[in-house]
Amino acid sequence: MNALSRNLYVCIMAGGKGERFWPLSRDGRPKQFLRIVGPHSMITETALRNRALVPPSRLLVVTTRAQARSVAHALPTIPRRNIIVEPCGRNTAPCIGLVSAMVARDNQDAVLAVVPADHVIDDTALYVQTIRDAAAMALREQALVTIGIEPQFPETGYGYIVAGRRIARRGPTKFSRVERFVEKPARARAEELIATGRALWNAGMFVFRVSDMLYSFWRYVPALHAALTRVLAAPKSLVPRMVADLYAHVHGISIDYAVMEKAKNVVVAHGPFRWDDVGSWSAVAGHWNRDGAGNVSRGEVAAVESSGCVVANECPGVVGLVGLEDVVVVRTRDALLVCPKSKAQDVKKLVQHLRNSRALRSYTQ
Amino acid sequence: MNALSRNLYVCIMAGGKGERFWPLSRDGRPKQFLRIVGPHSMITETALRNRALVPPSRLLVVTTRAQARSVAHALPTIPRRNIIVEPCGRNTAPCIGLVSAMVARDNQDAVLAVVPADHVIDDTALYVQTIRDAAAMALREQALVTIGIEPQFPETGYGYIVAGRRIARRGPTKFSRVERFVEKPARARAEELIATGRALWNAGMFVFRVSDMLYSFWRYVPALHAALTRVLAAPKSLVPRMVADLYAHVHGISIDYAVMEKAKNVVVAHGPFRWDDVGSWSAVAGHWNRDGAGNVSRGEVAAVESSGCVVANECPGVVGLVGLEDVVVVRTRDALLVCPKSKAQDVKKLVQHLRNSRALRSYTQ
Repeated sequence: MNALSRNLYVCIMAGGKGERFWPLSRDGRPKQFLRIVGPHSMITETALRNRALVPPSRLLVVTTRAQARSVAHALPTIPRRNIIVEPCGRNTAPCIGLVSAMVARDNQDAVLAVVPADHVIDDTALYVQTIRDAAAMALREQALVTIGIEPQFPETGYGYIVAGRRIARRGPTKFSRVERFVEKPARARAEELIATGRALWNAGMFVFRVSDMLYSFWRYVPALHAALTRVLAAPKSLVPRMVADLYAHVHGISIDYAVMEKAKNVVVAHGPFRWDDVGSWSAVAGHWNRDGAGNVSRGEVAAVESSGCVVANECPGVVGLVGLEDVVVVRTRDALLVCPKSKAQDVKKLVQHLRNSRALRSYTQ
Repeated sequence: MNALSRNLYVCIMAGGKGERFWPLSRDGRPKQFLRIVGPHSMITETALRNRALVPPSRLLVVTTRAQARSVAHALPTIPRRNIIVEPCGRNTAPCIGLVSAMVARDNQDAVLAVVPADHVIDDTALYVQTIRDAAAMALREQALVTIGIEPQFPETGYGYIVAGRRIARRGPTKFSRVERFVEKPARARAEELIATGRALWNAGMFVFRVSDMLYSFWRYVPALHAALTRVLAAPKSLVPRMVADLYAHVHGISIDYAVMEKAKNVVVAHGPFRWDDVGSWSAVAGHWNRDGAGNVSRGEVAAVESSGCVVANECPGVVGLVGLEDVVVVRTRDALLVCPKSKAQDVKKLVQHLRNSRALRSYTQ
């Protein structure tokens, strides 16, 4: 375990756009920089959650050029060289390949955990235990471990992992082979999946030896592997330009599709903690305190004969509701959002609408 | 007509509380001081509407002590002595009695039109013609004229006047005897009333010779008449104290109940103009411009897949709606209201709730 501890790295993927959290999120301030649940921004909460796993020197962040400064500001203790800038978003496969290659150059024996910056996990101790067990599994079985979450309800906004044969435990965490990955299902399909008792939510978190991941890239996405190899073989001063060139030519592709669905050594860990990707304003209802009528709110709010509402009042002043059900209200200094909870996913349509208006574009920035 | 012109007075009743227009209306700024329809506040719009009828010297306002300064500010051209202060609200009968007595002291032949400060009338020319014709009718027939409005739909928020026998016209306006007054009816009753073709909305506007009104007070509310007589017989310096004493002891009673429903010489004028008392935020929908989806708004608003909403954005910044139907949103600098259009009347409950909260009370002031 000592060797494992020394070789464990955590990489936070922080490239999100977060249009669905308008008006709190703006072009330069996506979801991971917002304080949605807990006292800190989501990326800071994520970094704090991983503090027990790795020292700052082995905590990396992949982000965009536009957000690099905000990342450094949010995570003042991690070294600047640990902030890896992607020239543009190309989904998770190029991102994970690049980080794996960079870590491998420093440490051939590294085990890397890759986690999104903008998810909520309620129980840090259980999370830490799961990642430790997954790392041990990855190390001893040369497995690519993906983290699945015991589903609470038939959510249609998540992908699912159908677990196959149970395999030996490592520590308290359960592990299974993966029977198949399922993309975001329709409602009826989600209910079927839950009913099988073998489906897990795909949390988009992965734990693997970097050498195993690079082998899988070589095997399943050889062109990308070759490009990564060229980048890493180049003198350090040339790396940014070569990364830019790589990203200019590579197609966006997810790590699930590029590698995990094909590799034979994929294992799913049954994450026992509560997890939520908080995909929209309506999702915060599960994390804030409720009043007697099932409203959740932050800031000065007066609700009369209203129920099931989500109110984020983010600036001085009062929000008054009368006779309202299941509506989201978000009030910031210069903007206001009102929409039914069931339409919270469509806030991105509003952001598009604002972007397309010369007069209103500034409210997306 | 010349004698009529010289003897015509208009009194604007401006005592409203206007809780239903929170957060734009506050304790010191009720509905009549708000800009709801048109470029000016409702009381200023009302004064402008009456400019063609009377000079400023014959335009009076009855208001509360708290609002007297705001009235003077809103109506800078009328003499300060024309602003009559009621010590407290006692409904319309004491108010109309007091003004009638005060006008009668100056001019025994006066014809007085009493109109609320906070109603919307779309066609000023038709309104002016109706008041002129009503004044002629009052003068020649010694009638107490009440203004009825041809109803557009079975509104349950208004009282109704059932017209009886048609009587001779004066000018282009139709007049009828009054069969009876009907208080705010339930929906089914309102539909029946409309179906008769003889029901008019009670607009709360009256035109009469002050001597006729005072005779009716003497006949039907003699105690109030006696008190008014004492007040007006006193030296001017004592009037305010005597008015205070009168209001401290008199019961609140409406002019309809105290006089109009009893007097034999009551006549209703069929007002042909569009009229609305704009009783709540949902009522402004009839007066502002609609977008293609039936939303009405003021200020910077972006509505996506939304319809039938009423949005008043009263300060810099944007209001964004997504997937919302028939909701009222009012955004001011320090407060926000969100409620279904069907619950717009209940905004006063929210104001009560705020008043009862030590932390939030300031938002009603």
